[in-house]
Amino acid sequence: MAEALNGMKRTHMCGVLRETNVGEKVTLMGWVQKRRNLGGLIFVDLRDREGIAQIVFDTTVSKESFEKASLIRGEFVIAISGVVKMRESINNNIPTGKIEVFANELKILSESEIPPIHINDEDEANERLRLKYRYLDLRKPKMQKRMRLRNQVSKITRDFLDVNGFLDIETPFLTKPTPEGARDYLVPSRVNKGKFYALPQSPQLFKQMLMVSGFDKYYQIVRCFRDEDLRADRQPEFTQIDMELSFVEENDVIEVNEKLLKRIFKEVLNKEIEIPFKRITYKEAMERYGSDKPDTRFGFELKLLNDELKSSEFKVFSSAIENGGSVRAININGQADTFSRKNISKLESFAKTYGAKGLAWMKITDEGITSPIAKFLSETEIKLILDKMEAKSGDLILLVADKNSVVFDSLGALRSEIAKKLNLLDKDEYDLLWVTEFPLYEYDEEENRFVAKHHPFTSPMDEDIELLESNPEKVRAKAYDIVLNGFEIGGGSIRIHNSDLQKKMFKALGFTDEEAYAKFGFLLDAFKYGTPPHGGLAFGLDRLVMLLTGSENIREVIAFPKTQNATSLLTDAPGPADKKQLDELGVKTIEESSDIDE
Amino acid sequence: MAEALNGMKRTHMCGVLRETNVGEKVTLMGWVQKRRNLGGLIFVDLRDREGIAQIVFDTTVSKESFEKASLIRGEFVIAISGVVKMRESINNNIPTGKIEVFANELKILSESEIPPIHINDEDEANERLRLKYRYLDLRKPKMQKRMRLRNQVSKITRDFLDVNGFLDIETPFLTKPTPEGARDYLVPSRVNKGKFYALPQSPQLFKQMLMVSGFDKYYQIVRCFRDEDLRADRQPEFTQIDMELSFVEENDVIEVNEKLLKRIFKEVLNKEIEIPFKRITYKEAMERYGSDKPDTRFGFELKLLNDELKSSEFKVFSSAIENGGSVRAININGQADTFSRKNISKLESFAKTYGAKGLAWMKITDEGITSPIAKFLSETEIKLILDKMEAKSGDLILLVADKNSVVFDSLGALRSEIAKKLNLLDKDEYDLLWVTEFPLYEYDEEENRFVAKHHPFTSPMDEDIELLESNPEKVRAKAYDIVLNGFEIGGGSIRIHNSDLQKKMFKALGFTDEEAYAKFGFLLDAFKYGTPPHGGLAFGLDRLVMLLTGSENIREVIAFPKTQNATSLLTDAPGPADKKQLDELGVKTIEESSDIDE
Repeated sequence: MAEALNGMKRTHMCGVLRETNVGEKVTLMGWVQKRRNLGGLIFVDLRDREGIAQIVFDTTVSKESFEKASLIRGEFVIAISGVVKMRESINNNIPTGKIEVFANELKILSESEIPPIHINDEDEANERLRLKYRYLDLRKPKMQKRMRLRNQVSKITRDFLDVNGFLDIETPFLTKPTPEGARDYLVPSRVNKGKFYALPQSPQLFKQMLMVSGFDKYYQIVRCFRDEDLRADRQPEFTQIDMELSFVEENDVIEVNEKLLKRIFKEVLNKEIEIPFKRITYKEAMERYGSDKPDTRFGFELKLLNDELKSSEFKVFSSAIENGGSVRAININGQADTFSRKNISKLESFAKTYGAKGLAWMKITDEGITSPIAKFLSETEIKLILDKMEAKSGDLILLVADKNSVVFDSLGALRSEIAKKLNLLDKDEYDLLWVTEFPLYEYDEEENRFVAKHHPFTSPMDEDIELLESNPEKVRAKAYDIVLNGFEIGGGSIRIHNSDLQKKMFKALGFTDEEAYAKFGFLLDAFKYGTPPHGGLAFGLDRLVMLLTGSENIREVIAFPKTQNATSLLTDAPGPADKKQLDELGVKTIEESSDIDE
Repeated sequence: MAEALNGMKRTHMCGVLRETNVGEKVTLMGWVQKRRNLGGLIFVDLRDREGIAQIVFDTTVSKESFEKASLIRGEFVIAISGVVKMRESINNNIPTGKIEVFANELKILSESEIPPIHINDEDEANERLRLKYRYLDLRKPKMQKRMRLRNQVSKITRDFLDVNGFLDIETPFLTKPTPEGARDYLVPSRVNKGKFYALPQSPQLFKQMLMVSGFDKYYQIVRCFRDEDLRADRQPEFTQIDMELSFVEENDVIEVNEKLLKRIFKEVLNKEIEIPFKRITYKEAMERYGSDKPDTRFGFELKLLNDELKSSEFKVFSSAIENGGSVRAININGQADTFSRKNISKLESFAKTYGAKGLAWMKITDEGITSPIAKFLSETEIKLILDKMEAKSGDLILLVADKNSVVFDSLGALRSEIAKKLNLLDKDEYDLLWVTEFPLYEYDEEENRFVAKHHPFTSPMDEDIELLESNPEKVRAKAYDIVLNGFEIGGGSIRIHNSDLQKKMFKALGFTDEEAYAKFGFLLDAFKYGTPPHGGLAFGLDRLVMLLTGSENIREVIAFPKTQNATSLLTDAPGPADKKQLDELGVKTIEESSDIDE
């Protein structure tokens, strides 16, 4: 059965009916949440985007509708007309709980088989089943709420940027592959056989060209693509709030984005956040939190123990220091009793996943310290450690000795892991901060050369320009990340707009002029004709919405996400392609071609 | 030279300064439109997004700035601070023409080489040069205006749809290839070697799934992709204003979009357009205008002459009718003298490009008719023709006899071509109309079967359902196009939400159940679990903005368009891909693999 509307018009959404509607004749349309027969009446909970209304079918109102209603099952789509009345037994759990609608007309618009997942927030179907039946999963109130919140964040962002003079300008999706663009998705061209488009990892080059064009302020909420192995919070396609501004310095970009975030938090969560946000340099973030995206809702700050331990007989410590690394520790205040040896051993395994070779620990008791490494350390060394760590009875000290990157990574991850275990993370607290003064370069050990930490158009700090050739590793960038509760939600930089400086930058990266031109020629050309000072920022919309909705991963805030294997369980994408079409595109799959070769 | 801002902050945009700013100290930043030395002073026209301001450098104000100003050339980027004064000689041609700014500080932020195109609206560089230097082309005031108008149309659309309950929900770009999806761009998957994603031609299937999910009203301003040979007004990637609504019938979709367009015209062009728009059925559009996207700003309507000529001795006419075709004519009222034989011969050549084998004509004079076909027709026939065409002295009648599609195409194109030649097209008149009751199917002569004219989810009209199997060519669809001045700017339909009807539809298209499932399985699955009646519409944003800006083609309203050869003259996309990367993707180009084979 599938009746047509035939002119029947909805008058209200189910979820908006209130006492004030009593006596009105209404027409509602939606999905059947449940049906029950009770005392000669049929009750139906009818659901739409706005909520649920109770519908009553009564033979004395309409015998025909009553009989048809007895055919209704869960997730049928129906339309009803009837009169709103006060309920006898009020349900205070739902906003429409004081009223019900006595139906005198019923159309069954669409039937439903029994759905493979439960359409409610308590459903415990596994994620693969949820993704396969995403169109049903999205019916759940919590998923509806997430998508609506995402819509709201986009809309607020657009309104804010529009009022502040930003222009939404669309940039191409079919762009040029960059040499070594290992993370580009490629698109074979049919018209230009043997050539490929690349899907953009970001509109970076285009937005900089728009500044050269004089648009002054640009934004776009835009899909970006990156073909990399996927982690929990990555997708092959993701959405950026992307912006660029002319005639600005770092503070200008930072201030406009603080205002934007303040407005989003206020309108979406009714939460006042204070601006300006805290700012912390990259160096300080690493030294205090072991992370360039620190969660500062809790302590457990790292302390450097090199001075205290550089001459220790305990070679694990002293040789780490000697080799240019460090010994650092965190104090888990007052939690010595919480962590048994077994628990600490779990923490050690956790630290090892970040490259640590081991995790040393000390428990401080009224009677002294308990520690497997005590026997390797002198009393003075122990005292120096305890002093530096401001250790009191009941504290647990965790120490890692290694090269700096491993020490930072493992202790940085440990402090967050422990805070989570100790329930120290207040999910209603939003800890926003800027991390600034990022290194301009980082050393790529595989390629054995410096690479740009952000991208090669990021401007060095003025006072560090003189170090570009002599000490590239010391050069700091006019780059800034915005961090929320330990997640990087956005980042950007002031760009180089001086072609001499740009040339130095490429030289430091080991590019010849030809290589630089092959990669970025059209932007370098553009810079010849009058380039304003400019800079920008991009937010990861998926991650921002994930945090605003308190979701576990970004798949929860994307209508049709892909799995970690980059596949869609709903559509079965990617799929096979017709050989005829591949021929037209001038490509073949390697499997196929080797079949032919044999 | 490239100075840094170092804390210097812009206070005003150049184009906004007025008499009311006189006496204020301002800081402006922008591009040098021109510089001239006059009477010991240096005058600079400084340009930003908002317009031009005149800057004066005077040695008595700042000797240093004056000397630096003598280095300035066109398109240099500069920042100046100074005081606003009234001009002695007022320039009424520009909004800032009453004032000038006496600069006491000048920074040259960026120099410029001599640009290869002129940065003004009078530039006559050819399109290839403009596209190669698009970042300079976009500096022209008219291009800036077009991009800003485009931004405005998007913003108004979003605001309108948001207020009307539509949710902006993002759908995937990496989707599943459809069998025979000849127009899909394909993207090889690295993780799933040998498989491909397809870039969407539209979010059709996803937006229908969102209706199944209960989002009720969806919209997206979204990039779509189609790999086809490009005509003047096509691009490989284009932007749609895409929407879908639940629990609606045709009128609901039409009404909300009339309101949207009314608002766009009012806010963008300050033009009141009347709603509701005219509606015309597909049949009437073809019969009166020879087109399913008629420009009704002028007459020259087609008339059918089959009754009058079916028994004519003139076989060109009578056999066309006998073979199922027709003879139709248009009356170019009062223009007999405008068109010489030579001109008419040009019209005939034009008609032939639309498949016509010839173009018959009659001129009506006070003395009778002049016509090369007069000798083949009886006097009665001539009289019947003149009566039907309501011909008067001075009129020119043009006739085509052929199969219907050729008659419609050639006469439809002729009437527009002639209206253009006669300057009958008022560019300030916006002729908006709906074309309704499209055929559900059209016959594909290559494939020798019926194919869906819109797409296979389009609902047939209720009264035609019984013809689905017996007379598919007669079935009309609940489909509607919106036409503006002879251009289709949007179109949509009510969808099938009844799975029995959907099955019949597929059967009529010659699909087996398996084939239908292979193409659209996930949507067919979704329809099993309660589907609301739904329908939608999509506008071509590029074309809409083209018409609103009076531009010649859509490349004029796209920041970074591609040529008709699907290449970017700016970035050189598409380009070659690294073999290493292709190996990782599991594909090779056919050229490359044949090299290996040899």
